Amino acid sequence: MSAEFQAWMKGVQSEIEIALKNFLPSAEQSPQQLHTLHEAMAYAVLDGGKRVRPLLVYAAGTLFDAPTELLSRAACALEMIHAYSLVHDDMPCMDDDALRRGKPTVHKKYGEANALLVGDALQAQAFLTLAEASTQSDNHRAMLALLAHASGSLGMCGGQAIDLASVGVALTRSQLEQMHQLKTGALLRASILLGAMSGKTLSSEENAALDAYAQAVGLAFQVVDDVLDATADSATLGKTAGKDAADHKPTYVSLLGLEASRALAEQLRQNAHQALDIFGVSAHYLRDLADLIVQRKA
Amino acid sequence: MSAEFQAWMKGVQSEIEIALKNFLPSAEQSPQQLHTLHEAMAYAVLDGGKRVRPLLVYAAGTLFDAPTELLSRAACALEMIHAYSLVHDDMPCMDDDALRRGKPTVHKKYGEANALLVGDALQAQAFLTLAEASTQSDNHRAMLALLAHASGSLGMCGGQAIDLASVGVALTRSQLEQMHQLKTGALLRASILLGAMSGKTLSSEENAALDAYAQAVGLAFQVVDDVLDATADSATLGKTAGKDAADHKPTYVSLLGLEASRALAEQLRQNAHQALDIFGVSAHYLRDLADLIVQRKA
Repeated sequence: MSAEFQAWMKGVQSEIEIALKNFLPSAEQSPQQLHTLHEAMAYAVLDGGKRVRPLLVYAAGTLFDAPTELLSRAACALEMIHAYSLVHDDMPCMDDDALRRGKPTVHKKYGEANALLVGDALQAQAFLTLAEASTQSDNHRAMLALLAHASGSLGMCGGQAIDLASVGVALTRSQLEQMHQLKTGALLRASILLGAMSGKTLSSEENAALDAYAQAVGLAFQVVDDVLDATADSATLGKTAGKDAADHKPTYVSLLGLEASRALAEQLRQNAHQALDIFGVSAHYLRDLADLIVQRKA
Repeated sequence: MSAEFQAWMKGVQSEIEIALKNFLPSAEQSPQQLHTLHEAMAYAVLDGGKRVRPLLVYAAGTLFDAPTELLSRAACALEMIHAYSLVHDDMPCMDDDALRRGKPTVHKKYGEANALLVGDALQAQAFLTLAEASTQSDNHRAMLALLAHASGSLGMCGGQAIDLASVGVALTRSQLEQMHQLKTGALLRASILLGAMSGKTLSSEENAALDAYAQAVGLAFQVVDDVLDATADSATLGKTAGKDAADHKPTYVSLLGLEASRALAEQLRQNAHQALDIFGVSAHYLRDLADLIVQRKA
């Protein structure tokens, strides 16, 4: 990983932290009765995570000189959707997790009812953040529709429903792949496409190339997640390690074994690089991100 | 209530039922693994309720000859937001209700985890439904932002958070009013404004008049809800009657008494009528709806 990429990444990450603060309702300014809700929303979103989705938005945005305001709003909207999904996913009726990003989960800290509302309100805030962009873009409506589609029952929520129904069930590799394409893949794909669409309306060739990249990276992300869940410890991950195996959830490691899973991740990394060929050198951040996603340790 | 208004209302209600079916993902066509999620989403939305929000959308839309497609999408989006909020509100960690619209609540029928996902997916589906409108409108982005704002932490979710924090607490009348303005008022107001905005960009005078109407009708809706909760039986309401009192929730009836609550509702009905004066005779459906909301028996 080049020093230039690392500096770019740190720059985006700190820009996103500031932007998220701006786009969230401030706990101090809100009516006193909403103080706890707004504090809990900030707790769920700020100061955590690698910001993979925002990084993908910005990396894809650089391909087409996308205006910063729209990129920043798209990135924050995706991060709010991601954060709300973690809050709900951690709840007792779902994964029942106590630890997230090294901190108590939202329902542990603020109670279940508040966690439910925090997630609901964050989803609305995501759409508000993207809808309120002042940048004029012909794509704006299509971007909002893409975000909604990727978040809904044929995207992330659908993937979680399949995940839920798959506990203790032996999935085939293609069923496992379909689940992850919805559960995490849809939002990662949306990150890449929204970043690019912030800059211009995509040609079908550009769309297909970004889609192929998104598919490879999305799948790689999940394969690596499964490998880390099986091999890293909770302190490194910032969440409970070994949880999937303990919950009898199907994973790439349980299906293919550890070495084949690692080889698959490497193959997908190469596929991601190939998909970017048509963009030439200007896709370098997207290439670096594919490397980062496969080679990360947490 | 005139026969013409009743016929119009029935027409809108059956149009909305068909439109909701169209805008929801079909359980039959979806991937088999998503069958249950999509069936449960339809269960939560279809064949239930008085469709007050869609009626307000259509009534306000007639003021400015709004195109049907946009009206129908706005109405369905609002109804999906409303339906998701009921699904989450009924869950054990919130109101823990077993009965809704005379049927078992979603978590009773499909389990808690599915209920959580049904609500999440319905919220996304609401934004998708409005974002995918093919009608060109300069207001479209503002409409999406208004929907998001009315649904989020400074709207419906915020009201529910205050509601949650108010169990067993003695609220003043103005605190109770603020809670309801967010909890139910924000979405009713959005219904009226989205209906009007489907037709044109509102002048500040038009906006203020519709806002005054919305405020009166929104409050009246809640006052009547409290009266009915205290006086009607579960079979008539299609939900558990007397629940608020049993839960020690502050209501208009507990604060003002039954007769004063009824008088307040009537006063608000008259305020709603007055607010519509600037629109003359073309606001007749909005007037009739104010009457309906105050005079309903369930």
